Amino acid sequence: MTTSTRDPEDEAAIRDLIDAKVAATRARNATRATAPFAPDALSFDVVGPLRHVGAGAVGQRAEAWFSTFRGPIGFDLLDLRIVVGAEVAFAHSLNHVHGTVADGRELDMWWRETLCFEKLGGRWMITHAHDSVPFDAETGKASLGLKP
Amino acid sequence: MTTSTRDPEDEAAIRDLIDAKVAATRARNATRATAPFAPDALSFDVVGPLRHVGAGAVGQRAEAWFSTFRGPIGFDLLDLRIVVGAEVAFAHSLNHVHGTVADGRELDMWWRETLCFEKLGGRWMITHAHDSVPFDAETGKASLGLKP
Repeated sequence: MTTSTRDPEDEAAIRDLIDAKVAATRARNATRATAPFAPDALSFDVVGPLRHVGAGAVGQRAEAWFSTFRGPIGFDLLDLRIVVGAEVAFAHSLNHVHGTVADGRELDMWWRETLCFEKLGGRWMITHAHDSVPFDAETGKASLGLKP
Repeated sequence: MTTSTRDPEDEAAIRDLIDAKVAATRARNATRATAPFAPDALSFDVVGPLRHVGAGAVGQRAEAWFSTFRGPIGFDLLDLRIVVGAEVAFAHSLNHVHGTVADGRELDMWWRETLCFEKLGGRWMITHAHDSVPFDAETGKASLGLKP
């Protein structure tokens, strides 16, 4: 059996990564939004394909998504829970985005996010991310209008 | 700074929980499929709502889903990766289900799964699960026919 101490510094480091990602999203800065990801991070995104491999793919997706907005993005996390071990951590939240998209429509959408972290070479990084909306089994449509 | 030993027993325990969940799904046994979940587990499911709170909700969903099949469920995990710390762990996979549903149609579908574990009172349990398919931004439809 192993034991570990939950270090407040580890929890603060994870929180800083999440805060930085939120701030970068609001500022539509794909480089900073991607910085917390490990080079070989595996991500399951809100839209297809099934998975993306690598931080490069995360950055390209962020760039493409940010470019669909006019001006800054309203972005907040609800019910963020962070669980931190000595070398492995995870966090989950309901993410709320609102803003004006390129064609002038107002986007106001919630999705679910799970982030998984590993401490690699003394530095916490996101090695796995899962973002999604559920779908409606009756219509086969993604449920883009749900609110918590 | 804290350090931890990654214990092969912890990894084996996590793997056993995942194997048991797979076997229970194939057997359409909702009670056994739900057994690895902590009582207050938070889950993001493939279909709405946005989230479910508690193992009871996971069990009800499993029961409802299993009842849509005729006979056993073909169920396999692809590219399962398990990352185990001293007290916190996570796993992700692409899950493949195939079988005959109640109206006689053949279901053959892939989805993404992320499971997050905590060692609570010396016992590993799933405290968070995230299951989803991506959607197609052009059509707004859930992408139910994707294959890895």
